[in-house]
Amino acid sequence: MVAKNDLKLIRSLHQKKYRTRHGLFLAEGVKVVSELLEGGLEPYRIYSTEPDLLAGAEAVTGAELQKMSALVQPNRTLGVFHIPELHPPAWSGWVLALDGVRDPGNLGTLIRLCDWFGIRELVCSPDTVDCFNPKVLQATMGSLARVGVHYLPLEEVLPQSGLPLFGASMEGAPAASVTLPDKGVLVLGSESHGVSAPVRALLDQVVCVPAFGQAESLNVATAGAILLYEIKRKA
Amino acid sequence: MVAKNDLKLIRSLHQKKYRTRHGLFLAEGVKVVSELLEGGLEPYRIYSTEPDLLAGAEAVTGAELQKMSALVQPNRTLGVFHIPELHPPAWSGWVLALDGVRDPGNLGTLIRLCDWFGIRELVCSPDTVDCFNPKVLQATMGSLARVGVHYLPLEEVLPQSGLPLFGASMEGAPAASVTLPDKGVLVLGSESHGVSAPVRALLDQVVCVPAFGQAESLNVATAGAILLYEIKRKA
Repeated sequence: MVAKNDLKLIRSLHQKKYRTRHGLFLAEGVKVVSELLEGGLEPYRIYSTEPDLLAGAEAVTGAELQKMSALVQPNRTLGVFHIPELHPPAWSGWVLALDGVRDPGNLGTLIRLCDWFGIRELVCSPDTVDCFNPKVLQATMGSLARVGVHYLPLEEVLPQSGLPLFGASMEGAPAASVTLPDKGVLVLGSESHGVSAPVRALLDQVVCVPAFGQAESLNVATAGAILLYEIKRKA
Repeated sequence: MVAKNDLKLIRSLHQKKYRTRHGLFLAEGVKVVSELLEGGLEPYRIYSTEPDLLAGAEAVTGAELQKMSALVQPNRTLGVFHIPELHPPAWSGWVLALDGVRDPGNLGTLIRLCDWFGIRELVCSPDTVDCFNPKVLQATMGSLARVGVHYLPLEEVLPQSGLPLFGASMEGAPAASVTLPDKGVLVLGSESHGVSAPVRALLDQVVCVPAFGQAESLNVATAGAILLYEIKRKA
């Protein structure tokens, strides 16, 4: 039995405003919740219709889970976690920066790609979608426990990073033809407008994924996948 | 004013059964509809709340569009197209094959990637999601006009292709270390089970995208993006 006040608190976490106010976020599904626990994130409450699945889970009914869930079809387990406190970015190795990425699925995929390629810091412009959005969590799986996601004004912090700044744009040089250093920042722009003008002005080099066919553009997450691969392949 | 029977026909196209029965599919949004028209697909009907946007569009009200649309927020224009007739695959150059990919967003992204990389033929196992699913169309944009998507039993057609067969799996050799010929088939497996056992038994070589971090897996569309890039980079 979940108290009415708890239900209300948890439902409020579907919205960024209340996640920020309470310092809490939601994660759903046994796999995601387990991965976040293993990654060391601090749970506030774990609920499950099958509480034996996870140590520390409180039993709830399907109807209660439905009331808390941000999913159309809730997935047995729901975790409420404390939003981790982050140190400022250390700008060591390669860092990914996102300038105005709005789609939660794209951000989630990019966080998972950072984790795959061993990139520990992701710096997002303040207008990038919130990484604790439930739809982002669905696409990241547990990677959010291993990748620090910072929201900072890029035009202020990138010049202070001390790293060479690379940006992705269709007008850039093919990534395979560019000499890539062993550390730097890769900036990816928004789905509709690319890298914003003030950030573009800071870039040392612009790179692209060469096209061989007629598609007008690549999705930001697939372009990011290829460019991070190219960086790691050469490193 | 859209006749009741037409509304009923168009709504039925949200389901694969009726798309197959009528040989028609839906595409939504001015951009997607224009790209399909430019790509040479044959329209059955085009409707728009702003009919001046597209030659041949019939005027509809917002309420009528809402009734026809598969989207929560319909996007002004909706096109009904004839499903194109395809010749059997020619197996020339590189071909992408998908074995049981279920997520419409993943299939849509992979069709767009084929178009980006100039791959003209995509061969899907019959249990792969239907490429005329409205959610696939949203992710492909107009690429469906330039990439032929075939549904065929892979274990029967791959041996007849005459091409070397490459498959993606985490147990494979890093793609960058493999000699890739100038033509072949790249097989990607389902999100949860990878390449199925009967198809795996046919492969000449298994390749992977090497991991540098701790993420458990890569999404099939991002893994496909990287492997197609690697193939085209070396070709």
